[in-house]
Amino acid sequence: MQKEDLLATQARITPFIHRTPVLTSRLLNEITGAQVFFKCENFQRTGAFKIRGAMNAVLQVTEDQKTRGVVTHSSGNFAQALALAAQSIGVKAYIVMPENAPQVKKDAVCGYGAEIVECASNPIAREKVAAQVEKETGAFFIHPSNDKDVILGQGTAALELLEDQPGLRYIFSPVGGGGLIGGTALAAHFFGKDTKVIGGEPFEADDAYRSLLSGQIESNDTTNTLADGLRTQLGDINFPIIRQHVAKIIRVEEKEIIAALRLIWERLKIVVEPSSAVALAALLRNKEEYASQKVGVILSGGNIDVGNLPF
Amino acid sequence: MQKEDLLATQARITPFIHRTPVLTSRLLNEITGAQVFFKCENFQRTGAFKIRGAMNAVLQVTEDQKTRGVVTHSSGNFAQALALAAQSIGVKAYIVMPENAPQVKKDAVCGYGAEIVECASNPIAREKVAAQVEKETGAFFIHPSNDKDVILGQGTAALELLEDQPGLRYIFSPVGGGGLIGGTALAAHFFGKDTKVIGGEPFEADDAYRSLLSGQIESNDTTNTLADGLRTQLGDINFPIIRQHVAKIIRVEEKEIIAALRLIWERLKIVVEPSSAVALAALLRNKEEYASQKVGVILSGGNIDVGNLPF
Repeated sequence: MQKEDLLATQARITPFIHRTPVLTSRLLNEITGAQVFFKCENFQRTGAFKIRGAMNAVLQVTEDQKTRGVVTHSSGNFAQALALAAQSIGVKAYIVMPENAPQVKKDAVCGYGAEIVECASNPIAREKVAAQVEKETGAFFIHPSNDKDVILGQGTAALELLEDQPGLRYIFSPVGGGGLIGGTALAAHFFGKDTKVIGGEPFEADDAYRSLLSGQIESNDTTNTLADGLRTQLGDINFPIIRQHVAKIIRVEEKEIIAALRLIWERLKIVVEPSSAVALAALLRNKEEYASQKVGVILSGGNIDVGNLPF
Repeated sequence: MQKEDLLATQARITPFIHRTPVLTSRLLNEITGAQVFFKCENFQRTGAFKIRGAMNAVLQVTEDQKTRGVVTHSSGNFAQALALAAQSIGVKAYIVMPENAPQVKKDAVCGYGAEIVECASNPIAREKVAAQVEKETGAFFIHPSNDKDVILGQGTAALELLEDQPGLRYIFSPVGGGGLIGGTALAAHFFGKDTKVIGGEPFEADDAYRSLLSGQIESNDTTNTLADGLRTQLGDINFPIIRQHVAKIIRVEEKEIIAALRLIWERLKIVVEPSSAVALAALLRNKEEYASQKVGVILSGGNIDVGNLPF
């Protein structure tokens, strides 16, 4: 993937997405000791960055494939993102979701005109059901994170951030399936001025941290984290990008995620989901290293049930 | 108060305040049936619109008075606002606060360099203690809402909103002490194109609603509302403005405030306090009247303890 691919991606998806604001806070600068620029993807369409990658992938499906639709498996933000992306260009979307997914998420996906196909709540079942839908309908499968076009799409958030703040020394991103941090790392590599990308990952789902240590893709031993968007598994397309272009991954405790979440809500006055707070939690954990530096933090999304908060 | 007074106020305070963003949401337009423009004073300095009025008042204190300081009584957002406003121009501020005010609010006021004077938690005690401070120190008393300069300052939020959206047919504002809605009404009168101002008020603190009915200032029988910023009493300076320039006041139930609060958090992805949600709750209660109209809603502030939410 080259510089030109990222620029082409940006040009392709810009008409379909929001350019999200970059917020700052005097108090959060004081608390972190750095100059922090928050890229607010909670204000993105569908409430998360995922629409960027979904849109980029859907727009490149062949005309023939478009008549047969697209399919993915996701219980989270990619489900809504692919549903809206497909709807935007009149393509049918099949979303494989665990049968125990919250009704509000199912309603959102249906609201974007997609068809939900239920599966048992485990990774093997969802892949199997998605493959079945692909076979039966001829729909084109788009993986939520381990896909070149998805990774490039997610990278446009950091690209916009670097356009707004070219002097960033670091960009912090949460690490889940690896799509966002992979794209962020490409954007920083091609468009930053020696901008280093740092990942934030929960101790409770630290497959990426351990994969960087061992040099091969490791699985999560536990996924018992509040950051539900980060419970997913690293993939073979984004892992090499992360290995090459991510400076390091900082793991954080659940209580650090909650504290960072609260800071963002109370100080920035915006609603973000726990996965977003992981990036700030990582910065806070090692804040001495980033003192007085210009630091970007990608706030990945804002989809949270406010009736069920960890405070 | 004339058009020129409001323009002079805007010029005076603009260097000291944020120009807050105006947000829209496709989903909230669908839910209300109107085209809604939210003026986001939760992003204002100190987290609420109050800094506008405080700044305008402090900047007009005479040089002689400045050496002796300013004093107000407030357990809420005006306490922090006057503290910061005074600090901005190197003036001493005394803030009379109830002894049972939350520690986090006291800390914020001290953080802005003001001196807290404690009083018993009732309206008579706070006025008495404020008068005492005024007498002993020679500090200049600034009322949180019933003050011409404060009203003009609060009106600049609606003035900015009308600059951004000149075609608004209605502006909804919460009604507490009457400073915000009084200023909003003046701004709409002088700068709107037949823009009507509607107040939202909790049934639990409906002094303004009943005052408009009776034609004289009524007191709150109860103040048992979640909208803690709206428990205060209408005054004799803002009431005549409200009588003349506010089209009507719509009262809302507590459950409607909570539902509107949740909509703002989950749909706009921003943190606002319950008092802010009262304006949207009023619009939702009578939404048939405003169908397809351009409607402004002033979100007054975002200071809330996220560990103690009504969801």
